Amino acid sequence: MPITAPGPLSLVPFVSVQHMMQLVLEIGIPRLLAEMASYIEEDFRRWKAFDKTPRVAAHSAEGVIELMPTSDGVTYGFKYVNGHPKNIREGRQTVTAFGVLANVGNGYPLLLSEMTLLTALRTAATSALAARHLAPPNPRTMAIIGNGAQCEFQALAFQAICGVDTIRLYDIDPAATRKAAANLSDSGLSVVACRSAEEAVETAEIITTCTADKQYATILTDNMVGSGVHLNAVGGDCPGKTELHRDILLRSDIFVEYTPQTRIEGEIQQLDPDHHVTELWKVIEGSAPGRRDATQVTLFDSVGFATEDFSALRYIRDRIAGTTHFQALDLLADPDEPRDLYGMLRRAAA
Amino acid sequence: MPITAPGPLSLVPFVSVQHMMQLVLEIGIPRLLAEMASYIEEDFRRWKAFDKTPRVAAHSAEGVIELMPTSDGVTYGFKYVNGHPKNIREGRQTVTAFGVLANVGNGYPLLLSEMTLLTALRTAATSALAARHLAPPNPRTMAIIGNGAQCEFQALAFQAICGVDTIRLYDIDPAATRKAAANLSDSGLSVVACRSAEEAVETAEIITTCTADKQYATILTDNMVGSGVHLNAVGGDCPGKTELHRDILLRSDIFVEYTPQTRIEGEIQQLDPDHHVTELWKVIEGSAPGRRDATQVTLFDSVGFATEDFSALRYIRDRIAGTTHFQALDLLADPDEPRDLYGMLRRAAA
Repeated sequence: MPITAPGPLSLVPFVSVQHMMQLVLEIGIPRLLAEMASYIEEDFRRWKAFDKTPRVAAHSAEGVIELMPTSDGVTYGFKYVNGHPKNIREGRQTVTAFGVLANVGNGYPLLLSEMTLLTALRTAATSALAARHLAPPNPRTMAIIGNGAQCEFQALAFQAICGVDTIRLYDIDPAATRKAAANLSDSGLSVVACRSAEEAVETAEIITTCTADKQYATILTDNMVGSGVHLNAVGGDCPGKTELHRDILLRSDIFVEYTPQTRIEGEIQQLDPDHHVTELWKVIEGSAPGRRDATQVTLFDSVGFATEDFSALRYIRDRIAGTTHFQALDLLADPDEPRDLYGMLRRAAA
Repeated sequence: MPITAPGPLSLVPFVSVQHMMQLVLEIGIPRLLAEMASYIEEDFRRWKAFDKTPRVAAHSAEGVIELMPTSDGVTYGFKYVNGHPKNIREGRQTVTAFGVLANVGNGYPLLLSEMTLLTALRTAATSALAARHLAPPNPRTMAIIGNGAQCEFQALAFQAICGVDTIRLYDIDPAATRKAAANLSDSGLSVVACRSAEEAVETAEIITTCTADKQYATILTDNMVGSGVHLNAVGGDCPGKTELHRDILLRSDIFVEYTPQTRIEGEIQQLDPDHHVTELWKVIEGSAPGRRDATQVTLFDSVGFATEDFSALRYIRDRIAGTTHFQALDLLADPDEPRDLYGMLRRAAA
């Protein structure tokens, strides 16, 4: 059947997983993480410019599907993301995602991109950005408890952005730790595989938790967290899913992305709804203190926020310009005369 | 740079605008509208199975970008749609859209589809489905005020689903009326181009309003609506955008899709928030009366609801099976070992 070729207004750049891998490898992961962290930081600095809303979640017994929209008044972005812990057992990703940027002025999409890889990268970049403002100065050693899909990205982000040189790994599944250690073997990081969470946190200035079970878990107990430590809690990110014992929260200074969302999804769902927390953007813009002294326990209660995805998509959009790491997708109808959508069909049939 | 081919779990069927045109023309528009109306009706009958939420809208001075999610517990769907009336003047569509179906059990997308054409089709199919339950029996003549992109689809849906044989067209821009009349010239409909809205509504048992201006407009005044008429108000679909004079609403029996959304977006934003309305699904399942007598004015205050997009996507998913009217899109990362997202990148680099 003869169909006329799509017009220029109908085409939207699409970054597939293959294209994203090409782009990431071409830029190099450490450089990409550092550059992406700059985009995320830049957008945190203009926090007030963004429309912010807690993500729109569809929960089921087995997981969650979420839409995360935001807009800075010029560009709109949203991410589709799922979280299904049992997927691992079926050979699927726990988290997959894709996202879109669009022009606020005319509503036309500007970019469609895979975001499974991109979410892993932006989550790690955000963690390391937060740690640069909250962790003890010149940290050397980070423990990572939970050695799943996010683990290596965290390690490389803290190396590239915070200067960490030693990673201490622990997972309840030793195969996960072996996988992460092998992947990091040529990273320049000193990698120590540990047999317990207690062993992993020894000497660590930063403790990252990124486990995936959808339950109230206690990955860290109070006695495991020494004074002066920075906690980067990545895994507790939906209702009913936490990683830290409540007592740790009560003696930490807690930093969050967007309070209304973190109250529902973060570690602080264990606390009173009026427990004091500080939004990270205030620390970044300098209107709230970050780390004040060497004994303070700081906690970044990270759940992932829409502006971070916006920043990551904005970065990808800038970086694919002039490359071949995308394809033009015929996503939008583009009739010769815009009111004549039906005529476009008629002419296609002719 | 060598990159391994995407695995089967990474691929999502994508229906482009070109593919959608091929599919629509292969099925034939009247048959497609009737079949799609059956899917929409089927999903209205199981209304209680759906997660329902008013759409998530990002408003700007020039338009709106919306996400419309829903789920029946087995399948999740959402639509991205914009509405920018000024786009017409720049050679763009007022409304463009795309949508996704996903598996609730594992969160993986099942279908990505253009929805600019599909929204036009589902809007018309829903209007005609509502009229089959609300309009006077055996209607012959419909007036359509507003002859833009939606107009011909409305005409063909009412022909295919309600048996209408005469369409009376009016638009403030005579070129729009000429365009619609030309497009409908071989439809089998008797088409009458009118010089005023008053002329268009003469003898019409059904009056469809589908204008696009984002303002409180008065396309119909009270004296233009005779007893027994069915009003199909399609164009008033966001805050500050209405088409009917309030007096018409006050003497109509009003039917809506999803009350909380229509209170914000529909004609009834002009009324008290507790003004009685009936949800269409109740009429379809038989638990609320539709048209009761020959003098009643019925009004379908249509704004478009997420379940209708879900039904339309479900229909497309069923109809592309076994055809070539889609392409496989490499949207999802699919590492050999699901926890080894980073290893996938490493192996791609090797």
